[in-house]
Amino acid sequence: MNTVNVETPGGSYPIHIAAGRLDSLEQSIPDDATSIALVSNPTVAALYADRAKRALAKTGKRLVYIELPDGEAYKDWQTLNLIFDGLLQSRCDRKTVLVALGGGVIGDMVGFAASCYMRGVRFVQVPTTLLAQVDSSVGGKTAVNHPLGKNMIGAFYQPIAVEIDPDVLRTLPSREVSAGLAEVIKYGCIIDAPFFDWCEQNVAALRALDHDAVAYAIKRSCELKAYVVSQDERESGLRAILNFGHTFGHAIEAGLGYGHWLHGEAVGCGMAQAAELSAKVAGLDELGVARVRDLVHAIGCPVTPPNLGTDHWIELMQVDKKTEGGTLRFILLPEIGKAVFQSAPLDVLRQVLHSTAVPVL
Amino acid sequence: MNTVNVETPGGSYPIHIAAGRLDSLEQSIPDDATSIALVSNPTVAALYADRAKRALAKTGKRLVYIELPDGEAYKDWQTLNLIFDGLLQSRCDRKTVLVALGGGVIGDMVGFAASCYMRGVRFVQVPTTLLAQVDSSVGGKTAVNHPLGKNMIGAFYQPIAVEIDPDVLRTLPSREVSAGLAEVIKYGCIIDAPFFDWCEQNVAALRALDHDAVAYAIKRSCELKAYVVSQDERESGLRAILNFGHTFGHAIEAGLGYGHWLHGEAVGCGMAQAAELSAKVAGLDELGVARVRDLVHAIGCPVTPPNLGTDHWIELMQVDKKTEGGTLRFILLPEIGKAVFQSAPLDVLRQVLHSTAVPVL
Repeated sequence: MNTVNVETPGGSYPIHIAAGRLDSLEQSIPDDATSIALVSNPTVAALYADRAKRALAKTGKRLVYIELPDGEAYKDWQTLNLIFDGLLQSRCDRKTVLVALGGGVIGDMVGFAASCYMRGVRFVQVPTTLLAQVDSSVGGKTAVNHPLGKNMIGAFYQPIAVEIDPDVLRTLPSREVSAGLAEVIKYGCIIDAPFFDWCEQNVAALRALDHDAVAYAIKRSCELKAYVVSQDERESGLRAILNFGHTFGHAIEAGLGYGHWLHGEAVGCGMAQAAELSAKVAGLDELGVARVRDLVHAIGCPVTPPNLGTDHWIELMQVDKKTEGGTLRFILLPEIGKAVFQSAPLDVLRQVLHSTAVPVL
Repeated sequence: MNTVNVETPGGSYPIHIAAGRLDSLEQSIPDDATSIALVSNPTVAALYADRAKRALAKTGKRLVYIELPDGEAYKDWQTLNLIFDGLLQSRCDRKTVLVALGGGVIGDMVGFAASCYMRGVRFVQVPTTLLAQVDSSVGGKTAVNHPLGKNMIGAFYQPIAVEIDPDVLRTLPSREVSAGLAEVIKYGCIIDAPFFDWCEQNVAALRALDHDAVAYAIKRSCELKAYVVSQDERESGLRAILNFGHTFGHAIEAGLGYGHWLHGEAVGCGMAQAAELSAKVAGLDELGVARVRDLVHAIGCPVTPPNLGTDHWIELMQVDKKTEGGTLRFILLPEIGKAVFQSAPLDVLRQVLHSTAVPVL
């Protein structure tokens, strides 16, 4: 088993990465827990809930199961409230431990529910998508969407453990594998040039879910994310580099309506756009732009953004929470493996949006 | 001006107490704030919003005003969402500072909104009721109600300042003055016997809003609360003593439906009940029971609880978040000025509920 430790002011916890880890989830439940609330969705539950329940039952503690509808479209307060309803109806108390079994949506919602149920209870992340395993389950960012913006309502709230079983990726649709790989290559782009090289060389093995390649990609991604969030839990500085590609990506998701593109697909495309903007204002050379775009394409993500109309693009990006006082700022690459946070002139941004966009079908 | 400092792991901040402080609110806004969102309700706004706006306008920053419906019945997610709607529609960002102008409901909701808007923005408490000035605005407990329980959804989230202007109490209905005094005498009960004596001696002056008496009661209450929360921000130990009377009180509020009794009235009555239970299991003598009950009565709060039916009482108290693993635990007084956290046998609890309850009219 690989273990990566995350240390933040808000809590320190292990990430355990091991094939078959799903059958040992009881090890993540503290002795003083009064009960366990397992939260999942029908898609994941059909595949893995029984194994998770069997493992958690080994604790001898009362187990409550709560099911949420599946999909980013349900990442809202109404669905979050189903968790609160279930917890309260089952008399869960301050020492109940929540277990999030699912992808990024389940993890974000269970984490936020844990942060505010009775002003905070403990929770464990059991991510079942590649994207959640390499990104969203680590670092304590939790949230739900608001009609006016993605992840606008949430909390920084750390889990007590992240339990990753790479074997569960075998049942993941290939489109979701590609979306997860977008966040994997992101770490190469922003902080680890040798890892970017490694991804280029192993892209076929990664897409085929080769056991060793995937295990290494998850471990390295978790290490890099753990390093960044340990430096800056609340995104007052360094952590912002993890948003590379996300300002463009969030605009794509909001502009098309949540759920049309997967989050990772939008981020993949957004990284290609951010690379182009980097060439114009941050010094990335043309070879670097091509390598980012080609790798995004090679992992199976779109590189051509939808045509939302330049003005609407900018409007959508201004709502994004990385804006401060109305100025648009981006994570950009002076070179591959290095990221900076800087503003871009509106006319240059318009050029990039114009050159990369094609009409929505 | 009196200043009381609160120091917690989640943030340190000053409580400023001064007549006319409402006209100097600009002093609580940090220089790097991008904008200010003032949140109030129609009742308070009609009296004080113009003065607050004039003061805040002195910063030269953009000022957004958001109005919520008035009352505990609106302390729910739907109303909370009006804050998010207003902030997002006005493009408020991570450096916007929220200002809560109102009583405990406004303070709790604005604090919780601040804790989760974009995963956390800064906020200032400007409490306009006595209860909020001596209790709810200090210490960072924020929440909204859920149909199945009071304050079930919330966060520990500290303000950056608490600005108390005792002059605003002149417009407070006397019933609300009594409700606020319940929390004032609570500090005497649990931690400061000389202050309990002082309250007994000054009860007439307090109810008449005598300037010096009220100023001292606010300052002493804030000092005692600041001491308790600095020892234990997240209520893992000492802080629980602040819930003296609250397990009974919350059951009254939930049983009658929120808004029939004021929170402070329910807590006042709950303290009289808790004193009786203290005599049976924690060693408080009969004189102590009588002094608590008489002082609750003298400040103008009810001492006779509604008859909710003993079983329903117990059911309502079990939902309260101070239960752990189903056992009912209470803050009780071995003597006035000293509190302990202990469980009470169900049959003794039933006796107390039976002896003190009268039918609901």
